[in-house]
Amino acid sequence: MTEHIVRSFDTELQGLRRSISEMGGIAETMLSNATAALVQRNTALAQSVIGADSRLDALQHEIEERGILTIARRQPLAVDLREIISAIRISGDLERIGDLAKNIAKRVLAIGSELQPQKVVAGVQHISDLALVQLKDVLDAYAQNDVAAAIEVWKRDGDIDALHNSLFRELLTYMMEDPRNISFCTHLLFCTKNIERIGDHTTNIAETIHYLVTGEALTAERPKQDGLNAPAPEPPGAGLGPR
Amino acid sequence: MTEHIVRSFDTELQGLRRSISEMGGIAETMLSNATAALVQRNTALAQSVIGADSRLDALQHEIEERGILTIARRQPLAVDLREIISAIRISGDLERIGDLAKNIAKRVLAIGSELQPQKVVAGVQHISDLALVQLKDVLDAYAQNDVAAAIEVWKRDGDIDALHNSLFRELLTYMMEDPRNISFCTHLLFCTKNIERIGDHTTNIAETIHYLVTGEALTAERPKQDGLNAPAPEPPGAGLGPR
Repeated sequence: MTEHIVRSFDTELQGLRRSISEMGGIAETMLSNATAALVQRNTALAQSVIGADSRLDALQHEIEERGILTIARRQPLAVDLREIISAIRISGDLERIGDLAKNIAKRVLAIGSELQPQKVVAGVQHISDLALVQLKDVLDAYAQNDVAAAIEVWKRDGDIDALHNSLFRELLTYMMEDPRNISFCTHLLFCTKNIERIGDHTTNIAETIHYLVTGEALTAERPKQDGLNAPAPEPPGAGLGPR
Repeated sequence: MTEHIVRSFDTELQGLRRSISEMGGIAETMLSNATAALVQRNTALAQSVIGADSRLDALQHEIEERGILTIARRQPLAVDLREIISAIRISGDLERIGDLAKNIAKRVLAIGSELQPQKVVAGVQHISDLALVQLKDVLDAYAQNDVAAAIEVWKRDGDIDALHNSLFRELLTYMMEDPRNISFCTHLLFCTKNIERIGDHTTNIAETIHYLVTGEALTAERPKQDGLNAPAPEPPGAGLGPR
């Protein structure tokens, strides 16, 4: 293989990483803005989140296409093959993160001017902040091939799940206390669920980094609860509500 | 290329299709059983759904790995490359369908013996039946490379979305009428949402079949509503409930 071909293969791999980095930046901004739009009831900001999604979709298709053509053309082995497979997988997770952020933004438009208990909205902001730190950290870990940092992110996903469960119970309690909260809190239930799923996709990326760097799957059980929020909450004092 | 190599390439492609077919059968059974378990409160059946998921995951990994190795080894072009890419994509959608069915089964265990209005449960059975027909039809379309049948499935996804929206409003109404319904109906909200998302993955498969057969993406807008179930329901007569 001539040096020319080797160099141009490296250029292809670097191009994939640059596109992943662009996707990561867009996904971070979408999550951050979707939550800000929810907290501030900012419909213009929500619209901007919805508009940003098409670029993310286009980048994902491009990465998939370029990745597969590179595999077919170069027949890469070992770490080079993993590099391409990882880029395709990570682009899929980032595209899904964008979809979930877009869904939150659409709910901001749907919620409109309904009543909104500030305390639960603060809870959504909190879980979103956690998810955003995780996303930033996993993208940094990818940029630096830092498998230890990826494992840290992977371990911390349990924090998001625990907060999700507690928010979930809190939202159900609000719904039981006053039926006027039900419609709005249902939107917040789904927003919170979306953020928890963003956490899962971030964990997927951490697993992909592990595979990329070591060639092995991360086989331990995920440090997460099952995300069902199963137990029916007993609203403190209020019993079964107004009845 | 010798006849021997050509034949063995065909064997590889057929093997991918056989694995997709096995995945499709498992995913159909999981959805059907998860809904039956929900309707009948059958926790043993729910457990069997949860147990079936690992086979689906294993098949997906196998298809992805074999597909990528085949691309690297054979450098296929045009329809052969699309055949492999399609198998990888479809296996991803089927794996997600299994996850969503498993999530319904987990909710059956979580719901336990809570009160359960039979009318809304019948609604969930109905949307699940629709989603199951769509899934069967899209798997048949794949087996026969039938792009017209795939487009029919794609068009019908709007029916699932419409039914989902109406069920969603009905569930919110139940919650508003009696706070004792809230916890159980929240589980049903997520079950219904899961089934709507199974419909989306089925639509993805229809789009992949179109790409596989024609080499072109299905570019029209998806015939779906945005799935937000945005409008707050006005419970008939009941106003804002007991207050």
